[in-house]
Amino acid sequence: MKSQTEKYLRYILNPLELFATERTREILSVNPTVAPVREEAATVVITAYVYNKDTIDELKNISIDQALALKNNDRIVWINIDGLRKDDIDRFGETFGVHPLFVEDILSVNQRPKTDEIDDILFSVVNMLFYNDEKQVLEHEQISLILGKNFVLTFQEDAERDVFNALRERLKAPASRTRTKQADYLYYTLLDTIVDHYFIVMEKLGEALENLEEEIVRNSSTRSLAHISIIRKEMIVLKRSVYPVREVVGHILKSESDLLNEDNTRYFKDVYDHAVQAIDLSENYRDMIMSMQDLYINNVNLKMNEVMKVMAIVTCLLAPATVIGGIFGMNFGTIPLLHNQWGFWFAVAAMLLIPIWMLAQFRKRGWF
Amino acid sequence: MKSQTEKYLRYILNPLELFATERTREILSVNPTVAPVREEAATVVITAYVYNKDTIDELKNISIDQALALKNNDRIVWINIDGLRKDDIDRFGETFGVHPLFVEDILSVNQRPKTDEIDDILFSVVNMLFYNDEKQVLEHEQISLILGKNFVLTFQEDAERDVFNALRERLKAPASRTRTKQADYLYYTLLDTIVDHYFIVMEKLGEALENLEEEIVRNSSTRSLAHISIIRKEMIVLKRSVYPVREVVGHILKSESDLLNEDNTRYFKDVYDHAVQAIDLSENYRDMIMSMQDLYINNVNLKMNEVMKVMAIVTCLLAPATVIGGIFGMNFGTIPLLHNQWGFWFAVAAMLLIPIWMLAQFRKRGWF
Amino acid sequence: MKSQTEKYLRYILNPLELFATERTREILSVNPTVAPVREEAATVVITAYVYNKDTIDELKNISIDQALALKNNDRIVWINIDGLRKDDIDRFGETFGVHPLFVEDILSVNQRPKTDEIDDILFSVVNMLFYNDEKQVLEHEQISLILGKNFVLTFQEDAERDVFNALRERLKAPASRTRTKQADYLYYTLLDTIVDHYFIVMEKLGEALENLEEEIVRNSSTRSLAHISIIRKEMIVLKRSVYPVREVVGHILKSESDLLNEDNTRYFKDVYDHAVQAIDLSENYRDMIMSMQDLYINNVNLKMNEVMKVMAIVTCLLAPATVIGGIFGMNFGTIPLLHNQWGFWFAVAAMLLIPIWMLAQFRKRGWF
Amino acid sequence: MKSQTEKYLRYILNPLELFATERTREILSVNPTVAPVREEAATVVITAYVYNKDTIDELKNISIDQALALKNNDRIVWINIDGLRKDDIDRFGETFGVHPLFVEDILSVNQRPKTDEIDDILFSVVNMLFYNDEKQVLEHEQISLILGKNFVLTFQEDAERDVFNALRERLKAPASRTRTKQADYLYYTLLDTIVDHYFIVMEKLGEALENLEEEIVRNSSTRSLAHISIIRKEMIVLKRSVYPVREVVGHILKSESDLLNEDNTRYFKDVYDHAVQAIDLSENYRDMIMSMQDLYINNVNLKMNEVMKVMAIVTCLLAPATVIGGIFGMNFGTIPLLHNQWGFWFAVAAMLLIPIWMLAQFRKRGWF
Amino acid sequence: MKSQTEKYLRYILNPLELFATERTREILSVNPTVAPVREEAATVVITAYVYNKDTIDELKNISIDQALALKNNDRIVWINIDGLRKDDIDRFGETFGVHPLFVEDILSVNQRPKTDEIDDILFSVVNMLFYNDEKQVLEHEQISLILGKNFVLTFQEDAERDVFNALRERLKAPASRTRTKQADYLYYTLLDTIVDHYFIVMEKLGEALENLEEEIVRNSSTRSLAHISIIRKEMIVLKRSVYPVREVVGHILKSESDLLNEDNTRYFKDVYDHAVQAIDLSENYRDMIMSMQDLYINNVNLKMNEVMKVMAIVTCLLAPATVIGGIFGMNFGTIPLLHNQWGFWFAVAAMLLIPIWMLAQFRKRGWF
Repeated sequence: MKSQTEKYLRYILNPLELFATERTREILSVNPTVAPVREEAATVVITAYVYNKDTIDELKNISIDQALALKNNDRIVWINIDGLRKDDIDRFGETFGVHPLFVEDILSVNQRPKTDEIDDILFSVVNMLFYNDEKQVLEHEQISLILGKNFVLTFQEDAERDVFNALRERLKAPASRTRTKQADYLYYTLLDTIVDHYFIVMEKLGEALENLEEEIVRNSSTRSLAHISIIRKEMIVLKRSVYPVREVVGHILKSESDLLNEDNTRYFKDVYDHAVQAIDLSENYRDMIMSMQDLYINNVNLKMNEVMKVMAIVTCLLAPATVIGGIFGMNFGTIPLLHNQWGFWFAVAAMLLIPIWMLAQFRKRGWF
Repeated sequence: MKSQTEKYLRYILNPLELFATERTREILSVNPTVAPVREEAATVVITAYVYNKDTIDELKNISIDQALALKNNDRIVWINIDGLRKDDIDRFGETFGVHPLFVEDILSVNQRPKTDEIDDILFSVVNMLFYNDEKQVLEHEQISLILGKNFVLTFQEDAERDVFNALRERLKAPASRTRTKQADYLYYTLLDTIVDHYFIVMEKLGEALENLEEEIVRNSSTRSLAHISIIRKEMIVLKRSVYPVREVVGHILKSESDLLNEDNTRYFKDVYDHAVQAIDLSENYRDMIMSMQDLYINNVNLKMNEVMKVMAIVTCLLAPATVIGGIFGMNFGTIPLLHNQWGFWFAVAAMLLIPIWMLAQFRKRGWF
Repeated sequence: MKSQTEKYLRYILNPLELFATERTREILSVNPTVAPVREEAATVVITAYVYNKDTIDELKNISIDQALALKNNDRIVWINIDGLRKDDIDRFGETFGVHPLFVEDILSVNQRPKTDEIDDILFSVVNMLFYNDEKQVLEHEQISLILGKNFVLTFQEDAERDVFNALRERLKAPASRTRTKQADYLYYTLLDTIVDHYFIVMEKLGEALENLEEEIVRNSSTRSLAHISIIRKEMIVLKRSVYPVREVVGHILKSESDLLNEDNTRYFKDVYDHAVQAIDLSENYRDMIMSMQDLYINNVNLKMNEVMKVMAIVTCLLAPATVIGGIFGMNFGTIPLLHNQWGFWFAVAAMLLIPIWMLAQFRKRGWF
Repeated sequence: MKSQTEKYLRYILNPLELFATERTREILSVNPTVAPVREEAATVVITAYVYNKDTIDELKNISIDQALALKNNDRIVWINIDGLRKDDIDRFGETFGVHPLFVEDILSVNQRPKTDEIDDILFSVVNMLFYNDEKQVLEHEQISLILGKNFVLTFQEDAERDVFNALRERLKAPASRTRTKQADYLYYTLLDTIVDHYFIVMEKLGEALENLEEEIVRNSSTRSLAHISIIRKEMIVLKRSVYPVREVVGHILKSESDLLNEDNTRYFKDVYDHAVQAIDLSENYRDMIMSMQDLYINNVNLKMNEVMKVMAIVTCLLAPATVIGGIFGMNFGTIPLLHNQWGFWFAVAAMLLIPIWMLAQFRKRGWF
Repeated sequence: MKSQTEKYLRYILNPLELFATERTREILSVNPTVAPVREEAATVVITAYVYNKDTIDELKNISIDQALALKNNDRIVWINIDGLRKDDIDRFGETFGVHPLFVEDILSVNQRPKTDEIDDILFSVVNMLFYNDEKQVLEHEQISLILGKNFVLTFQEDAERDVFNALRERLKAPASRTRTKQADYLYYTLLDTIVDHYFIVMEKLGEALENLEEEIVRNSSTRSLAHISIIRKEMIVLKRSVYPVREVVGHILKSESDLLNEDNTRYFKDVYDHAVQAIDLSENYRDMIMSMQDLYINNVNLKMNEVMKVMAIVTCLLAPATVIGGIFGMNFGTIPLLHNQWGFWFAVAAMLLIPIWMLAQFRKRGWF
């Protein structure tokens, strides 16, 4: 009984922890662009790659001035800025001819993914998704990408997490296709890497769904209910990042910017296909979680149903015995059978036979 | 027991207050344009700004005649009218060349947000949303904006609430971008301010949702039910104001009016993006509230389920004891064990052992 | 107990009356155009207005021949026919050059609202909605409008109900805008009047919804269930009339007929906006009724939940007392405490203390 | 008790018959075009009409050769083939220049309604719907219509059911409009007849829905559940036939085939309107059946709720009496009141008064 | 009781097996294109057909070099590769001029069905569906089809399952239409075969649905719940393969590639119609499974309802008897009737008559 009691107590003491209500707040937080509240990054790490078909220079941890000096270059320049500070972004914007509205978008919080182009700059904001195994939540990092004539700038919020490492290795390999192509191909590979990473995150969500289903089938408890609620929230986060990516790439496909070589359209079309597939998949996840919620509800009902049946049966079976006991327990002066030798046994037999007859009736009706 | 009784009584005495049924009426009230029932405003406050790149005049609390006299001006004029009276609007309409249909729209109640243009006038109606912390409801104020050659007119219903203050400060600053641009840029900043304010209102709704979730998890009661019902109503209000704004700005983007400089299209596109984001977000809120309602239902079911189990178990465990008590309480002449020294203890032992055996069975079946 | 019994009996005796099942039949009745079953009207009332900017003649209760004679006229002619008879319509059709397909549509029952044009005739069918306060149902009257060169014909089913009265008064006023414009402006005012009347009907439905919500919150009974069911049916009626009106007006907006002056497009656009708003609003009503149904279900569940809890508690609290009573009521020769002076009081104390301990446990678990 | 038992037994013995599970199979059966399994018709009946404005010949029960000989004719030829045999269709196809793909479609089973044109042949497949009053199911017969230069061919699966009779009569009337027009007008009247017949079928479904609602309100039993399930299935059948008809006619409207006279477009537009109305109506039916299912669930819950309340009340009211009986039934040596003259009456009074007080409490809480 | 216990135990011991949770994982697995994890096929079987109108050569089990040597050929070449190995595909890609992106797609896992064209190559990926009767799951095999000038390449994952056999036979027949047409006609027949096979798979799912419905109606148990859950999962798989096929064929229809003869458009249009029909049908299946889930829930509720009623009735009927027994079982000194000769029989009569009166009341209220 002890462990049982404790189990109940656990539910009662910290249901809020189980249900992650503070997560709701995070998810529903919005983007008050009027007064951006982005904190200045503690550290800023700038890495640059300057390359053409034949040569490549990797410049790690350079200063902003060094980075800005790379602007006019006959090779292709990719500058990655990890950590956002208003002053830095303003300087990059000025030097590389980025419109102030784009600079604002880079600095804004919870920006909706989008692509836009002004003058000779193509600008995309997308979310990189990560699955936090510990907290079992999706985390997103806003990434801004800028494509200009011969250069690509990428702005990340957080210096610690980065999905571009594999890409860097490929870039350093002399035979890599990226090296032989223009800056727009680099832009494509960056977007492609981000979109492909969604699938890895969804794989994790898929595992969470699988575990949830097992849990529901084994034991439909408050815990399962909390998990359904949590995963439905993460679905909202997923949807918010993944759905607009189709437009992001679609906009590039329809763009007539000179920055984009027609030859590379097929690559962007490939990213587009992946984005569509990611959306399809997240639809499937949604179907799945709704199906699991239905499963949960039905399972809970079925269990309750079984308990109800047992109650009904026990109540019905023992009720006649109680009545018979009551009848012969009355203190009337004359009660038949009372002084009969076999009276007690008749009564007990009735107590047994009536329930047996009832059982047979119930079984005939298919009640259990 | 007292406090318990009172708790129940509170529910019974004023459930209508909890459920805010009169709010339903307000939300469902409609716009009988045939017979507009707008009351004349008690006070009308007119403020005007007359500015160009170099100079700005702030005219506070001017009379209508003074305002109308500003019509022909080589600087840009922004007149803000707080408080609507039919005669005033008619006079403004006549002087500034506003079509009678627009004048009718300004005066109508619960107008659907829209943009339209006739002759050289661009006209938008949108709703400003406010969150009333006290009553926990969304309030909306209909704002009509008129863009003409060198002038902008804004009509607000209520003199007390105004979200344009920050904008006024910016306007007075000599270096502000608004000052260097045409009237359409002012029009953009006004719309932008209104749309951005939606996010602040949604932030508040987000808090209400978070509190609701906590409440549901802690204690799924009539109160939670009332809160779900109330927030679903507010969602309808939110949707009604936010959804049509996309069309409002979309219409401006597609307009070929001379009033709109092509250079500023990108700014209206920015407002458009924000409007889309606001719609996305309100979709998320809708998902969230439905998810919470499901949570509520499931939580209530789960709790009832637990109570049912306890009933089932108690009923099952004590029923045999009752029957045994009944058997040996019968008044038959000959009942075995009755005169046995240990008879009573046998009976009591049976009363204890049968439930223990049953408990073991139930636990094996995973019923608790 | 009497009134209670009667309350139950009332539900049992006339639930069909409560649920208005015969209304289902009316709503689902269809339009078998092959064999039109329209009954000939008992009375036909024809009213005509012949006007131009300067003069207006009102011809009340004229005969068909008189009406037909108005065909060639240098002023604008509006003939309103209340009550439909096949022969009359055929004669009007022939005289005014209305295509036989339109004549068929005028005579058909439950025609879907639509606009069409053949040759020099623009034809619209719409439904006028009325709220029958007594039966609390929506009633609709099919109105056919025909716009020709210099004339407008309107065909109504029922002579008694008419929403065009206000319009007639306006028409007679010499300064009215309608008088100075062509026949298409009259056509616009007719459509506008019909669409605006929808809002008045919805206002009534809004009241019904508000009352329903109050009823659900106060007392979720069979009666509330009947009301939900009834209002959902009326929603279907509302939707059927209101939704197609957007197309009706949209068709006119896109028409390139010579009958329509480009100047008046803005007026039709205004009706279009109202139609869109009516659709939006009926969507809100739909959301609201679904939200109320959820509220009803949840409220019923919550009440049942409370009853279940009371049962569980009473069962649990009294069960030990019954068992203790049973134990000491057995007729064994030797039962401890039986002859102890305080035995009875020990037993009664146990009967009281065990429930009190149980109550404390339940409260700790938050069960009530 | 007898009839009650039998009622239960009936449900248990033949629930499958009630739920029409074999109908599910029929509905879900598909169209394996690879290996068409259409059985050869037992009888084939060919009827032909050869007509122009002035003359008409009715050829009943002619042979295939006779029918084929009608191909080159200066009058309009309508051949109706009841009963499908592969060889016949092949011969017709060859003689009348019908593309092999169309021949395949005529022979296929469960073809989706569609219109297509190859060379000088316009081809439509639609479903004729019939309501089988006895089995209460929708039955459909696939009808293929072919429009060529001066001829129309119609292929029906079943010789027995035919909705074209009224049309035949009209055709024979010398003044009929069909006689004065080209073959495309005949094609229109055929389609029109089929679409209009949908409304008659829906009228029947409407009756079934009305009866269902009455049944649900009166007595929500397994039988109602079966009927809901059955009607939802028929809705799927209805939708499958009705929805694609819009495209069928829409395709004709957009076609630029020489076979279609522009004058007759308005007639096809009329069929199109009817098809849209049929779709609208079937949407309404869908809403209605979902609304009824909700009604059913709510009604069942409400009834169970009432039963639960009675249980709760009876349990609560009698429980104290049982305990009091138990207390004074104990065999202790000293029990107060036991030898008091009024003791018994005190106990019985307590047994009565406690329940009465409880009843008052329950009523105060609004529990019944 | 034994078999009953065992039945319950079976549910408790292996519910996970019933619910196929590992299937969830399979369905939700995604396509991490960054690092394709496709295993190299154990065996690769290459079959080639080289044909023109007059001659056909069937080359079974040829080596890759033999296959590649078929590239330049004046007859049409169809090479089918069963089993995918990276090196093989690379070599085919190089020889036949297939773009590296297509080669990547062929090798990727869980690729979304699509059609694309680069240079003179038309490329489609679709899923072949199979119904695994044993495991009752849908299995899919990714098939890549390449159409080039005079050649068609097909890549299948698995050598064992092949739906092209019937096609091969037809190809060998000299009179077959495929032989007289270009390679695009072969491409059409391949797609047609795949799409038509979906109907066979759906037929199987239809049977599963029919069995499920029977099971639900007969006995709504955990097993039915598991089956609903399983079939909903398979629906997701079905949807994932079938829905994108419309786009696959739609893309071909809109393509202006020289590879596609305009004459054959009608054949691709036919496949398109079938794809649309497959989508329609899978929508119907979805409706059907949701309808069955509702049926399941309602059936479970109805059964529980019946059990509840029996409980209520038994409780109510026996409760008065228990109380009467208790009253006359009290040990008061003076209890009326106790020494009356007929006292016992009065009590027993009350025990019988009260329940009979109650039964009559219940029946009057329609409770059973």
